[in-house]
Order: sequence, then C-alpha cells, then structure tokens
Amino acid sequence: MNYQSLLDSIATEVAPMIGQGKVADYIPALARVPIAQFGIALRTIDGHTAAAGDADTPFSIQSVSKVLGLTLGLQAMGPTLWERIGREPSGNAFNSLVQLESERGKPRNPFINAGALCVADRLLSAHAEPARVFAELGRQLHGASFVFDEEVARSERETGYRNAALVNFIKSFKQIDNDVEDVLALYCHQCSIVATCTQLAHAFGYLANGGEQPGTGARIVDREQARRINSVMLTCGTYDAAGEFAFKVGIPCKSGVGGAIVAVIPGEMVLCAWSPGLDETGNSVVARRALELFVTRTGLSVF
Amino acid sequence: MNYQSLLDSIATEVAPMIGQGKVADYIPALARVPIAQFGIALRTIDGHTAAAGDADTPFSIQSVSKVLGLTLGLQAMGPTLWERIGREPSGNAFNSLVQLESERGKPRNPFINAGALCVADRLLSAHAEPARVFAELGRQLHGASFVFDEEVARSERETGYRNAALVNFIKSFKQIDNDVEDVLALYCHQCSIVATCTQLAHAFGYLANGGEQPGTGARIVDREQARRINSVMLTCGTYDAAGEFAFKVGIPCKSGVGGAIVAVIPGEMVLCAWSPGLDETGNSVVARRALELFVTRTGLSVF
Amino acid sequence: MNYQSLLDSIATEVAPMIGQGKVADYIPALARVPIAQFGIALRTIDGHTAAAGDADTPFSIQSVSKVLGLTLGLQAMGPTLWERIGREPSGNAFNSLVQLESERGKPRNPFINAGALCVADRLLSAHAEPARVFAELGRQLHGASFVFDEEVARSERETGYRNAALVNFIKSFKQIDNDVEDVLALYCHQCSIVATCTQLAHAFGYLANGGEQPGTGARIVDREQARRINSVMLTCGTYDAAGEFAFKVGIPCKSGVGGAIVAVIPGEMVLCAWSPGLDETGNSVVARRALELFVTRTGLSVF
Amino acid sequence: MNYQSLLDSIATEVAPMIGQGKVADYIPALARVPIAQFGIALRTIDGHTAAAGDADTPFSIQSVSKVLGLTLGLQAMGPTLWERIGREPSGNAFNSLVQLESERGKPRNPFINAGALCVADRLLSAHAEPARVFAELGRQLHGASFVFDEEVARSERETGYRNAALVNFIKSFKQIDNDVEDVLALYCHQCSIVATCTQLAHAFGYLANGGEQPGTGARIVDREQARRINSVMLTCGTYDAAGEFAFKVGIPCKSGVGGAIVAVIPGEMVLCAWSPGLDETGNSVVARRALELFVTRTGLSVF
Repeated sequence: MNYQSLLDSIATEVAPMIGQGKVADYIPALARVPIAQFGIALRTIDGHTAAAGDADTPFSIQSVSKVLGLTLGLQAMGPTLWERIGREPSGNAFNSLVQLESERGKPRNPFINAGALCVADRLLSAHAEPARVFAELGRQLHGASFVFDEEVARSERETGYRNAALVNFIKSFKQIDNDVEDVLALYCHQCSIVATCTQLAHAFGYLANGGEQPGTGARIVDREQARRINSVMLTCGTYDAAGEFAFKVGIPCKSGVGGAIVAVIPGEMVLCAWSPGLDETGNSVVARRALELFVTRTGLSVF
Repeated sequence: MNYQSLLDSIATEVAPMIGQGKVADYIPALARVPIAQFGIALRTIDGHTAAAGDADTPFSIQSVSKVLGLTLGLQAMGPTLWERIGREPSGNAFNSLVQLESERGKPRNPFINAGALCVADRLLSAHAEPARVFAELGRQLHGASFVFDEEVARSERETGYRNAALVNFIKSFKQIDNDVEDVLALYCHQCSIVATCTQLAHAFGYLANGGEQPGTGARIVDREQARRINSVMLTCGTYDAAGEFAFKVGIPCKSGVGGAIVAVIPGEMVLCAWSPGLDETGNSVVARRALELFVTRTGLSVF
Repeated sequence: MNYQSLLDSIATEVAPMIGQGKVADYIPALARVPIAQFGIALRTIDGHTAAAGDADTPFSIQSVSKVLGLTLGLQAMGPTLWERIGREPSGNAFNSLVQLESERGKPRNPFINAGALCVADRLLSAHAEPARVFAELGRQLHGASFVFDEEVARSERETGYRNAALVNFIKSFKQIDNDVEDVLALYCHQCSIVATCTQLAHAFGYLANGGEQPGTGARIVDREQARRINSVMLTCGTYDAAGEFAFKVGIPCKSGVGGAIVAVIPGEMVLCAWSPGLDETGNSVVARRALELFVTRTGLSVF
Repeated sequence: MNYQSLLDSIATEVAPMIGQGKVADYIPALARVPIAQFGIALRTIDGHTAAAGDADTPFSIQSVSKVLGLTLGLQAMGPTLWERIGREPSGNAFNSLVQLESERGKPRNPFINAGALCVADRLLSAHAEPARVFAELGRQLHGASFVFDEEVARSERETGYRNAALVNFIKSFKQIDNDVEDVLALYCHQCSIVATCTQLAHAFGYLANGGEQPGTGARIVDREQARRINSVMLTCGTYDAAGEFAFKVGIPCKSGVGGAIVAVIPGEMVLCAWSPGLDETGNSVVARRALELFVTRTGLSVF
C-alpha cells in the first residue's frame, strides 16, 4: 500500500475540519497555539515513513508522555510497578478523585493523571535524576535527547491545583513515597516534552515491534511488556473516550491535550496525528478523524 | 501448531486449580452445578477443531448470551442501536445503578446487565416473537436451535430483583419502550440458553471471520460490526475485570456467571473455556487461567 | 400574639409570589391542579386556631404522608423499626439509588422514598390490612377517616418506575420482606391522601404536644418518639433542602410535592402551609416563604 | 434543677465506659493523650456553672474551632460568607472529596474540613493577621486570649495531606482566593487551640443567648446569626452522625477529634463534655453518652 498517498488524501479530506474543537487553554503557553494546524506521520517497523501536513511542527506532547513514563517505570521495576497502579479503565473523567477515594489511593491505570503521578513517584524512588532519565530516553528512542519547554512545565506546576490535589490525596493513603513537590515537578517536566509527529512515530516504534526499537534493535521493554502497554493504551489511552476509540479506531492510542494522538498497529507501524482543537473528551477532533480514516481505508485494526 | 495437544497440556496444567472460586449461587439451578468441571474447545475459521476436558458438557451460558443479543440487535436496527446504549467500559460492578443515575438511563455498554436489558427492549420493539428469534439464531450459528433451561429462566425472573430495579430505573428515564415484565422475561430467557464449549466455539465463528459464519458462509453481521463487537468484548466483556483481561489475555472475551468464557482471535479462531468456580469479579477462575496459558503459549494476542 | 392577623398579613405579603415555581407534573391528577392557590392554617396545642387563604381547599398530601407512615411504624414496632431505616440526612436527591447501593439497601431515613417504602413493608408485616390502618389513623388524629384519591394512587402506581426500581433494589439486598407490588400499592395509597391545611394543622398536633393528641388526649406515640419524629423532620423532612430549611425556618417541617408543608413548633403549635408551585428541590415556593415569615415575625424557632 | 448533682451523677454513670473507643492517632501529639479521661461542664446564660470530672484539663479542641471560624467569618462578611459555602448536611465522611467534585468546589457546610478551609480563606481575605484575630476572639469570649499548641499545628500541617488535597481541589474550581499554604497554616493553627470544658462552656455562651455573650453583654453575632449557627451545628456539627445526634441528643452540638463535644441549649445554657476515645464516626463515645443522659434527665431538647 502506498502510505504516502494515503496520508496525503487523508490530509485533504480532514482539511475542512481543521479549526473544530477548542485549544487547551488552562495554561498560556498552550492557549496561544494556533488551532489551524494538522500533521500526520507514520513509520513502519521495517523503516518506511510517510508524512503529511505539519508533520514536522513541534508541539507539547502532554499526556502522550505518560507512555514514556510507563515505559521507564517498567524498565526500572518490572511488574512490581503494578502494585500501586491498576490496569482498569476509569469510567470517569481523567482527573477524577472519586474513584481514588473508593479505591483507597490506588489509581485505576497509569494513563489517568493520578496513575501517571504514581508512576512519577516510582521513578523518583528508582533514579537519582529521573528528569535526566526522561531526556535520555529520547536518545534511545529517536537518537536525540527529548526537549522540554520550561515555560510549559512551570505554568503547569503553578496552576496545576488539580494535580496537587491528586498527589496529596494519594499520599494521604500512603501510596506516594516521595515529596509532593518533587512528584509534581517531575510530572510537569515530562508533560512539557516538545516533539513532532515524525519524531513520535519514530520514537514509539518499539510498541509495534515487540519491545525492540526498529532500526537500532535496542530492547526497550520485553515482548510481553510491549503487548501490555498496547493493551492499556487501547483500554485507557484516550481518557473517558477509550471505549469509543476502541470501537471506532480499534487500535491502541494515547492522546494528549496538546492535540497529539499516537497510535500503534502491532507488527506493522506507529502513527502520530496532531491538531490542537480538542473535543469535549480532551481528544483532538481532527487527529481522531484522521486515524479513523486510516483504519477504515487500510482495514488495519487489532480486531 | 498442534492445537489439540496444546489444549490437552493446558487441561493438565489447570487441573490442580479446578475447584477454586465459588459457584454462582443466587439461583438453585446454578448453585447445584458441581464445581469440579473444566472444558475447553476451539474452532479455527478454516474449520479445524480441538477440545479437552468437559468440552461437551452443557452449561448455562448466562451473560455470554449478551453477545447474541447484541448480534440480533445490530441485525435488527444497525447502528441506531447505539442511540440508547454506550460503548464505554463501566468502571463499576456489572449491575451498578450508580452510573445509570448520573448518565440518565443510558447504560454504558451492552454487556452490563443494564445495557443487555436495553438491547432486549430493542428486540421486543423489532420482532413480534423475539424469544423465537433467539432460538433461530442457533440454527444459523451452529445448525440447531438454541436450547433454553426453563427452570433457570423462571428462577432468574423470580429472584432477579436487581434486574427488575434496573429496568424500572431505566424506564423512569424513558429509555425503555416495552413493558417491564416483557423485557425481564426476554432477558431471563436468553440467559438460560444451554450449550457446550464445542458448540460455542462453533457458534461465535463469525466474530473471528469478519461477520461471516465459517463453513456455511452465512453473513451474520457486516465486517465493521464484527470488528466492533470484538472491540466491545475486549473493553467491556468481562465485567469490572476487562482491563485486567485485556492486559493478561489480550483478546476479546465474554464471560458468564455459569463459568464460561468465549474468546475471539480475529482472523484465526474462537475458543470457549468453562469451569463453574468464579472469582470475586464474576469470571471463571480456571477458564481465565486456561485462556491466559493459551495466549502465552501461542503468542496469539491482538496487541 | 394575634395569630389570625399574622396569618392574614403573611397571606397578603406572599400573594404576589403565588404562581411561582412549577406544579408537579409527573401524573395527570397533580398536573392539573391550578397553581394560583395558597392556604395556611395553625392550631396551638391549647386549641386556638387561625387560618388564611385557601386553608380549606383539599389537596394531595403526597410525602407529608411519610410522617403518618412513620407514626404507624413506631406504633407497630417501636424502635425496632430503625433496624432497617437510618436517621441520617441523605445529601442526595430524594429518590436517589446511589446511597442505597453503597449502604446495601438500608435507606438513610424514613422521609426519602426508599425509606418510606421500607416503612410500608414493615406495616405490611405488622397489619393484616395496613391500608385500613392508615384510614383509621385519620379518625384518631382529626376525627374522620383519611380520604384517598384513587385516581392519584392508580396513576402513581402506573407511572412510578423509580419507586418500583427502589423497592426491587432494596429487595435485592433482602431488606424488603413483602411482595414488591404490595409494598408499592400501600405506598401509593398513602401518598394519595387528600386533606386541607386546617385538617393537617389539627392532625399533627401530637408532634407539638409530646405525642398526645391535643383535645382528645389520645396518646399517639410516646414523648420520646414525638421528639425523635420532630428531629427527623428537621434534618430530613424537606428533601435535599433540609439544611437550608433548618437554617432559614429553624423548625421541623415535612413537605410534599402536592405543595404542602407541615411545620411543628414543639410545645406550641402545628402549622400547615400549601401552594402547588414547587422550587427545584421539590418544596413549595410560597408555602416555604410563608413559614419563613411566620418564624421571623414570631421569633419562634427551635434554635 | 441542681445541675451540679446531675453532672456528678452522669460522671458516675459513664465512668465504666471511659476507655471505650480509640484516641485519634494521626498525629503524635494527639495519639499520646491518655484515653482514661472525662470531663463535663456547663454554664447557664444567667451565669450558673457546674462541672464534673476532668473539667479543667486542657485538650486540643480541633474541629470545635470550626464554630469559632464560622463566628469570625460571619463577623467579617455577614451573609456573603454563604456564597462559597453551603448549609446542607454532607451525607458523606467529613473529609470526602466526592461531593466537592459534583458540586464544583462549593463545600456542603462550614463544619466539614472543606468548608472550614473555605472559611479560613475568607478570613485571610478579610484580615491582615487572621491568626491574631482568632487569639483575640478568646479575650472576647472568655476573657483570655486563646492558647495554641504549636506542636499540634505543625504536625497537622506536615501530615495533613488530605487537607492539602482539599484546598488544592477547591482552588482548582477557583473557590479559594489565597495561597494554598496560607489557608492550610491558618486552618491548622485554629485546630490547635487548647482549652478546657469549663472554658468552652463559658466561651460559647453567646450561642445560647441570642448572639450576646452572657456576663459581659458583648455582641458577638446578631440574633439571627446565632440561631443559624445553632441550626448548622444541629444538622452538620457531628460529622456523618449528625442525624443520629439530632435523633438521640436533640440539641445543636459540635464535636472534635480531640474528644470534645460542645452543646448549645438555646435560651438556657452551653455544655462541654470531653473524653478522648472516639467512635467510628469520629465523635467521643463517652462525651456523647454523657450529653444523651443530660438531655434525657432534664428533658431539655429543642424538639
């Protein structure tokens, strides 16, 4: 299949939708991103690439970084990571405290904020300089250290009362070991990573390739872990719309409020679509539609 | 791969676990099923079969019938079925009323009781004799009308106060059109279907085969619908343990409190494992373990 | 104090508000009650009476009957009644199922529907003809059998899916002993009692008088029970606005969706105000305001 | 009535219960308080006093200080205080975040932690030195500045992750204006006030006396405000047991995890009972029983 012409035709088809939705506005650095942008890129596990639109425009990856956090967490502690974090869909908004209360401080999964904050706590316990470990991961995944947007990280920390509430709440159940401020700082730092569609389609190749980074052959996680990260992405990767994504898109995805959605087709490729306008579930309207079109046209789906 | 010897070895391996868990005891007909039974069967889309243990012992399929209901619902009304039923995991116990309240009578998905009752209501509106339509479906799927256990249906109806609460509650939001008693009767009737592992592995073949029944070539649902039923099974098919199943088993499954779990490997086969002892999430302890072993040994998983 | 002129002046003062709010419309017989009506009546424990407006117009007492049910329940079984029903405010809408779920079928108090249904179940166990016992109570309280509106009772039963859900749900926790239909029938029957402000101010005299009916001296409940019914009225008698009523009105009240509010001033008198327009909490807008004015003008309050 | 001999007899009657329950153990300074203590004191509005047991032993007043905070809040801003804080019972544990979420950051009442934190925020906006205003209040109420236990305040601040979660959560709804740390510091400071039964029975006299401090005649709040504080105490003053207290004790009460319960009999007197052993609702087992006995013996109750 000619993926380049397919991406081109998808870019043409979604063009009229660009501008739909609402750019995340809770911090100034995100609010001022122009909504009228769209990019898409893919990279197959045997190294073919294709891209269309603003595929090389950098954006804030935000919650897509939760997959990186989970990857580092599994590298550092293996399955014991799951002692403090579940693998169930949440059935509630991504930053809900309700379930945390009835489940005594064990977040439902690593892709809601509560769970990602617990992963950050685990990384603080595992590494002397966890922020540096994050940066390094970029080198392993796409040949260059990840870049952070310090303004975003700072704003996120200064205005992130909901996240501060989550960490304090979890700590009240003794499920956070490190200092509240340190956990928040690491979390905000990871969310501020800046990347392009092309870079992310490259970086997450290991998830489509049994845990081994295509090209370099570097083993990032073991086969079973890769399979399980994909499973958690499918059931929990797109906030409270995960069922809808599984139903309509049918492949593991992780979205971020910066407008990116990374999608994994196991054994085949990784895609990244991006457009800043979000729907009411916090997922990019246009990136979502682009992935749906891709799946429909190619028949690629896990089901 | 030699599936027969694989199933044999799995049956041997799980034998020491048989008897773990607790037989469903809310109606006498289920409570008196001996716990010490285990069967497993598979059928590939090209017609190969394998089976081990009590694969030909009939049991009450219970919630596995929700997949049949959904199939009939999609046959009868296509995507409009989804106007009254969501596709999101519930994040709560399978018979919870809490979410129904905040979501104003629209059940989260067709595999929780509330959703299956809504499907039954839709079937009552679509067919003059919906119970007969259910029976007929058996003929289409495995060559013989489905068999019902009237005692189970009657007990279920007489003691099913939670289901009666659900139907009345949904009807209070005007999301049920038919008479409360009729909806309950149809639902209890479908839950009382009796089948064997071998029969179910045969019957659900269309889900692994793009909607077309292997062997007969009968089109049961269209390709996209088959894909989407699988997706809902993966995200919602095993009560509140769906995330855990996706994580550990990694293929679409639907379980019932009779102890059966049906699993679909798209493009490959359907399996059915059965053992009456349930864990605290309502899923068969031994059937679950058997499927995990199958997936681990074969490497077959959607991820 | 000249209560007659006070009630007259209150009637004048609230006159411009009459018509505010919304008449209960869930059954036809209630929906067609003209909104532009208001009555108020009081009776002191030493027999003085005063009344203004439509004080002798009959209306459907609806949830005010829950006080009668509680009274009969305490007569029949004393404090053991409380084994199945709590005394805590609910903090949720009056017909919520959420709390019932987390509290395993024990309603929070006898003045939410769930609790009143449990009281009805207790009366069915205690009396051969509980509906007749209700009627008789009228004779004890104000010299004439209570009158029922059979059309209201029937409509209520036919459309009361939420109540049917509640009874079935509670029965699923084995906290209802009698037949679901019988419980619903008794409950709908008691709600359909028809009375006037004057009659209710008379009937509830025992609550202001230590449990003894003023005039006749009939002992209805013991002193402590009277005190406790008043306490439950204050904390739970006005649906989810009980705190607000205690704050603004400061005396035990019980309201009904027919527009009546009965208020008890212990040691002094009983008032009944009525006007069909309800606010969003289900309490009569004008009756509420009239009681606030009464309390402000007289300085009578329990606090 | 001879109150002194009544308190003596109550002290004798509850003596065998002393030691029941569990001392609050979430901070060391509270955990090391010996459980085997009990005191009770009262002061009528015309100046008569009576006391028994450890009535002059100082203890940490903890949540009883919420009444002081509310008093200062009403002094500073009058009814506008209620724009950010409700007056409804919570129906959930005193430090629950669930209701806050569904009610968008407006706490149900000023006596749950969330509400008291909002009051502290209001005091920070109203006063340059709110902590000093608290201390001064003591001078107005019982002739001497309140005394604080700095160790308790510090421990409370250091370990109070749940309170930190609450403030951050409320601030995420923009319902807290001041700095999170400042709000927590003021709140922990007020909770650390140390006083005796005798002092508290004296200090809260204004609530039994229409807002005017008995003896000095100082106007603390206006008559209506006093009435309303009493109402909120009755409906919300004893955590999730408020309905039970109203039912059994029948007078406005405010309890604290230090083991104190302050009770107001409007027009008559204020009582304070104290014993460190708490029941599972966070109320002192023995103090509660002592107040029940007092009410039963005297017949004093608001109902």
